[in-house]
Amino acid sequence: MQFVHETLAQRVLLGSGQAATAVAAEVVRLERRRVMLIHGVAEAALAQRVAADLPVTLHWDEVRQHVPLELARRARIAARDAGVDVIVSVGGGSTTGLAKAVALEVDVPIVAVPTTYAGSEATPVWGLTDDGVKSTGVDPTVLPAAVIYDAALTTSLSIDLTVASGLNGLAHCVDSLWAPRADPINLAMALEGARALASGLPAVAAEPEDLEGREQCLYGAYLAALAFASAGSGMHHKICHVLGGGFDLPHAPTHAVVLPYVLAHNAPAVPDLAGRLALALGATQSGVVADPARAAVEALEALCTGLGAPDSLGGIGLAETDLPECAARCLPVIPDSTPVPVTEASLTALLRAAWAGDPPTAPAQSHPEPTKESS
Amino acid sequence: MQFVHETLAQRVLLGSGQAATAVAAEVVRLERRRVMLIHGVAEAALAQRVAADLPVTLHWDEVRQHVPLELARRARIAARDAGVDVIVSVGGGSTTGLAKAVALEVDVPIVAVPTTYAGSEATPVWGLTDDGVKSTGVDPTVLPAAVIYDAALTTSLSIDLTVASGLNGLAHCVDSLWAPRADPINLAMALEGARALASGLPAVAAEPEDLEGREQCLYGAYLAALAFASAGSGMHHKICHVLGGGFDLPHAPTHAVVLPYVLAHNAPAVPDLAGRLALALGATQSGVVADPARAAVEALEALCTGLGAPDSLGGIGLAETDLPECAARCLPVIPDSTPVPVTEASLTALLRAAWAGDPPTAPAQSHPEPTKESS
Repeated sequence: MQFVHETLAQRVLLGSGQAATAVAAEVVRLERRRVMLIHGVAEAALAQRVAADLPVTLHWDEVRQHVPLELARRARIAARDAGVDVIVSVGGGSTTGLAKAVALEVDVPIVAVPTTYAGSEATPVWGLTDDGVKSTGVDPTVLPAAVIYDAALTTSLSIDLTVASGLNGLAHCVDSLWAPRADPINLAMALEGARALASGLPAVAAEPEDLEGREQCLYGAYLAALAFASAGSGMHHKICHVLGGGFDLPHAPTHAVVLPYVLAHNAPAVPDLAGRLALALGATQSGVVADPARAAVEALEALCTGLGAPDSLGGIGLAETDLPECAARCLPVIPDSTPVPVTEASLTALLRAAWAGDPPTAPAQSHPEPTKESS
Repeated sequence: MQFVHETLAQRVLLGSGQAATAVAAEVVRLERRRVMLIHGVAEAALAQRVAADLPVTLHWDEVRQHVPLELARRARIAARDAGVDVIVSVGGGSTTGLAKAVALEVDVPIVAVPTTYAGSEATPVWGLTDDGVKSTGVDPTVLPAAVIYDAALTTSLSIDLTVASGLNGLAHCVDSLWAPRADPINLAMALEGARALASGLPAVAAEPEDLEGREQCLYGAYLAALAFASAGSGMHHKICHVLGGGFDLPHAPTHAVVLPYVLAHNAPAVPDLAGRLALALGATQSGVVADPARAAVEALEALCTGLGAPDSLGGIGLAETDLPECAARCLPVIPDSTPVPVTEASLTALLRAAWAGDPPTAPAQSHPEPTKESS
């Protein structure tokens, strides 16, 4: 065992129906008096409820995906002009992202009230887009000082978006197991996050107003983001980044399709991790004892299928003729920390299986013995 | 689900044989140049190894249990006089405690190098003793900025002390499950800590030089302390505090004796938690399915017995005639968060069983149905 784990300071509150009270209390606790309220147009009604008891000095309701630099600059100027001393953001990843972009230059804390399972509120990662080029960075000053999770604000999130956003969170958990900075602490958070998401997502899919299921999803997505920010991008996220950026596939469905294949590829080399993940995803101990890698993949597939997630890259728009190019672009970016090293042949086979929706399997040339165990 | 969880900033490094390099790197990272090195006389050789590459301005080798205020005052004056800008502590709980007492008044960060499983390095809790009266407090400024775990520094810790210190850590984990501020996040850390300690302690007891076992113990004790500091003192620690403070029983053996009884008392009311704890302690899934509460207690007893821990309060010095007084003193301090509420009768029965070393059982009047589940 050997690791460096950096824990960042943050207060997290979870309580359904308590956002307005909790946010007001956090602003008082931070001894702030001039609030910049940020939300998107779609969240105007939610934001109004949340901000009911706040001293709002600046009300900013322009939010766009990928945080355009031009927008961030205008928001920063407005924040400075209004003399705000705290930002309260109500919304999904783009809203939290704009709050971070402002905090990056204007030295004020953020109180984040997430309404999706994006997880940006749990990380010190910021992103800005200029002329279509996205730059990202890590700065502890953009990590929200407090996060308020209120499941009552998320019941209007459609099932499609819930599943997409939730499986994105689950991908954070699974990929954290073998990401470059994987360590036992972020592993424990990733497994607990997987457990919560695997319990919450089916509950919400069955009954969108199920507050307990929504709470599990928020909690699971929080841990997923913590683990992912700590562990870094593993094989799964590198592949999805290529597919999304280079082949214009939709973000969330791509994650849902690719994840079981990456898990099947790596699980045989990390049976202990696979067994713990399988249990977190609801597998039985007997299945885990028999074949932990198989149990993990089957539990993940059962979850994805039950949620009606897409199951082939062909089905979400990748052309078969793009597979060689796709494999070639992925090959150099797969991290060395990946338990089962990839070759051009194994990567092509993986992508072809994912394209066709064939059952996920371990690579044929995979070593039968464990080759690496992360903890 | 409802919780408030406060995460504090800290860097944790674990690497056997790397303490000297890691400490020097942390001091550079903190941009500090004037080190106050604190260690006890018994750790002089270890401290010398750890501090080999450090700019030590002040070398302080006077450490005493419970951190006498008079000692803390002298150390603070020396720190100020020497103009130190960072403290490096090498030792167990008393050494970390003195470093915290200095940092409470002299505004410098601490880099802690623990040599036991006390866990003080993971908490913002300080303690000082004046005229036999101990006062404690919580202040984020005394939390070490960085902790360096090097199992090679712990191989000389005797098996007796290892078991005592390790079971103390395990008590932190178990009691966190139902302590007043229990939440799902500190629960996940407590269970992971229990898993690591249950794996590491038997390995070290079998082979004191087993570095992997020592690493698991350090890692488990770290998580145990994090969980405990976050969740607060539960029923177990309140009982042990009374037994130690009022009846002069030895600290660590008292923990080892009492823990299975408190677990047996509460586990039937929290079967989900009991099942997860049982798995963490090495129980089989079939045992957990059959009776999670029983499985948890049996796994804990098997661990304690295997480690040769004491198993009765009578055996470590409590007089049978003290039992009524002991129960009377414990009764008012048992937290309301305890899953199975105590009565004078059930508490007396528990203490009597623990005094005699009878098998731990659930209280006779315990509700057959789960009455409370913490997550």
